[in-house]
Amino acid sequence: MSDPYVPPKVWKWDEGDEGSDRFSPINRPVAGSTHEKELPVGKHPIQIYSQGTPNGVKVTIMLEELLGAGVEDAEYDAWLVRINGEQFSTGFVKVNPNSKIPAMLDMTTSPPTRVFETGAILLYLAEKFEHFVPKDGLGRAECLSWLFWQMGSAPYLGGGFGHFYFYTEEKYEYPINRYAMEIKRQMDVLDRNLADRRFLIGDEYTIADVATYSWYGQMVVGNFWKSREFLDIDSYTNVIRWATEIHHRPAVRRGRKVNRTSDTGITERHDASDFDKFGL
Amino acid sequence: MSDPYVPPKVWKWDEGDEGSDRFSPINRPVAGSTHEKELPVGKHPIQIYSQGTPNGVKVTIMLEELLGAGVEDAEYDAWLVRINGEQFSTGFVKVNPNSKIPAMLDMTTSPPTRVFETGAILLYLAEKFEHFVPKDGLGRAECLSWLFWQMGSAPYLGGGFGHFYFYTEEKYEYPINRYAMEIKRQMDVLDRNLADRRFLIGDEYTIADVATYSWYGQMVVGNFWKSREFLDIDSYTNVIRWATEIHHRPAVRRGRKVNRTSDTGITERHDASDFDKFGL
Repeated sequence: MSDPYVPPKVWKWDEGDEGSDRFSPINRPVAGSTHEKELPVGKHPIQIYSQGTPNGVKVTIMLEELLGAGVEDAEYDAWLVRINGEQFSTGFVKVNPNSKIPAMLDMTTSPPTRVFETGAILLYLAEKFEHFVPKDGLGRAECLSWLFWQMGSAPYLGGGFGHFYFYTEEKYEYPINRYAMEIKRQMDVLDRNLADRRFLIGDEYTIADVATYSWYGQMVVGNFWKSREFLDIDSYTNVIRWATEIHHRPAVRRGRKVNRTSDTGITERHDASDFDKFGL
Repeated sequence: MSDPYVPPKVWKWDEGDEGSDRFSPINRPVAGSTHEKELPVGKHPIQIYSQGTPNGVKVTIMLEELLGAGVEDAEYDAWLVRINGEQFSTGFVKVNPNSKIPAMLDMTTSPPTRVFETGAILLYLAEKFEHFVPKDGLGRAECLSWLFWQMGSAPYLGGGFGHFYFYTEEKYEYPINRYAMEIKRQMDVLDRNLADRRFLIGDEYTIADVATYSWYGQMVVGNFWKSREFLDIDSYTNVIRWATEIHHRPAVRRGRKVNRTSDTGITERHDASDFDKFGL
């Protein structure tokens, strides 16, 4: 046994210490911008500033769903903001003072409307275009409940389990156990709910599904952080059935490709024809 | 140096191991109920099932604000659900399958409308009674952005920083540093936003303030987890100014008292006169 750690009286940031994980160089204890740079603005009503992470694709999936449903005013430009530091530009901070992707500008209002946080963007778009959020009171309440469930739960998935199981150089037993237990509980919450429901709130596909698919759905379809066996993901059969159906929706296949830095996607999206090379 | 920890191939729950923190006995890797018990229902339109934690008081503050603004239909019964296991009753799980307090039933619809997750409850009440959420598009978008900001950020506060700095028996250096850095960043996001705004979205007090006050505001007014010096809370002067104003609102003083298990509050609230003993 080594001596137990005792925290100092006042926490101090050692800027020279980049820590032990790949995100350390971009983690900071202060907000605000680090460099001057304005954001580009395209010709479409909706401007998206993002990267194709699970949080990023929530919004591009939603916009592709809207376009797929015939909502022409949901045309959008999706600009790549690499989260290796570009989220700290003066332009980005003006749209999202929290410096997290994705962020959105609705150019049809004067001044343009900024929206940040994926839950807010999904709800804003659903209400503006009257799609993917129920109009009846009971359905709307159930949709909001599951939408907010995703927002309050996913920090334990990416920022908790994924961080400690996969990203840290050294593996720490206590936090891995803590977050593995919580993620299994969350998966079971979803699995029980989906036992007799096609989508999260019932027969209707909503923004709650879009949000939850992007994290939990993509996870059970694939092998996030090589954790499939560790978490026994195969046992959540209802989640897998639900996720697989959503995974194959044409709009979801398109939305997943946007703002990707690898060859499997497109770095920017400005027109429906940008997906032609994938046959989508 | 001891040997590095290597996670097992498949994570296993050791039910006999209650772990090293006070919440361990109620943490489970599965969802659903553990015992049969129905929830009580009172005479008022709104039924709340909760405990007076920062998440719990968000909703009772909101209801007291609505009553204070003259909305008589916001009368409510607030029932205590102790989070030492009562959240796993069959009755509670029916209202919130995620087994977290607070949960709400609106008895004015048929069947009653269930709402869970504080963000969903606040938005539901704000829309139902047309108070504390702006009607104009720009204001509403800003309110939603900050409301969702709180929902996605607070898991790093209570479930992250508070857990590792205060609740675990052994102190772990890496997670304490990780979450201290993030909470200081979040405080700075708020502090910069409040530098030239009275409330989170400007001059108007909204559900975004109610939600954020309950965690971040109560934290800077007090000394959550004895961390005031460690995080240098005194440096966030704009957050302190904003929180102090909200802290003294009569409705906030009442809402904070509800579903408390100590002498400083009331275990249940069924009538405005329940606050008489506090002169509120």
